[in-house]
Amino acid sequence: MERYVIAVLVANISGVLTRVSSMFTRRGFNIDSLTVGETESGEFSRITITLRGDEAIRHQVVKQLAKLHDIKEVEVLKPQDTVSRELLLIKITNSSATRQDILAAASVYRAKIIDYSLEALCCEITGESAKIEAFIELMKPFGILEMCRTGLVALERGCNCLKTE
Amino acid sequence: MERYVIAVLVANISGVLTRVSSMFTRRGFNIDSLTVGETESGEFSRITITLRGDEAIRHQVVKQLAKLHDIKEVEVLKPQDTVSRELLLIKITNSSATRQDILAAASVYRAKIIDYSLEALCCEITGESAKIEAFIELMKPFGILEMCRTGLVALERGCNCLKTE
Repeated sequence: MERYVIAVLVANISGVLTRVSSMFTRRGFNIDSLTVGETESGEFSRITITLRGDEAIRHQVVKQLAKLHDIKEVEVLKPQDTVSRELLLIKITNSSATRQDILAAASVYRAKIIDYSLEALCCEITGESAKIEAFIELMKPFGILEMCRTGLVALERGCNCLKTE
Repeated sequence: MERYVIAVLVANISGVLTRVSSMFTRRGFNIDSLTVGETESGEFSRITITLRGDEAIRHQVVKQLAKLHDIKEVEVLKPQDTVSRELLLIKITNSSATRQDILAAASVYRAKIIDYSLEALCCEITGESAKIEAFIELMKPFGILEMCRTGLVALERGCNCLKTE
């Protein structure tokens, strides 16, 4: 199943996120990740959704989203024309036996150590989803204590934009 | 009004996000940002919510969240004991008149240029919310074409964790 990234521009008012997420629940579409954030205009928020499915599901999702109130624009982003990133904070057990291995991996992945205590190390890492997944897999044997992941944000390459006008 | 960061551990099942976001809509609590992502356990997702309000609102939000189904744990993170980050992708007009100013600011803020065309520059930047806000303000005069922000993720410093057991 392919993975789709859908960018949605919505009015910046209370209740829109509920409307969007309840549409997904009601229809049984399974979201991989969802982020919501302010845009350059105070009027709109931007929701980025990733989901897996076939062509028919993608079509249905776009159609149902476009029907909702307070939705300004819905666009399926083409992977080859898109830059996408996510952010992960991950807390790993700190021990003298494994510390050097953790720090070496973090350095190669350009992860930053943002907290250090005798018991735990906290790393910040940004990248495409595949990089984030690989780093999590790499850290598993060292003991992941806790992690917090933003989900994907994405913009089209070049100067194409979602229209707020 | 103070800004609160609330971490919520929820069962990784369809409909939980809708339940959380509709509670906020129904009660009229105003969310600043919300992120939802997988955790180290396949069973749970982690929702991070930032909101502004007084002590009474914070108390109400925690109480109402804890009442919802499929919520495993709710915790208000203390700013002094927490590392927090967000991620911004921002597309700015590229012109020979302003390019050097944009690149200089990006370099000082340790933003990465992740797409470059004759018309537009796309930057990735990670940091605490204040840094992200400052970078957006700095870019405004150069012409922000589009932006996409993840919202905050946060973990407690040291080895304290939200309990999944």
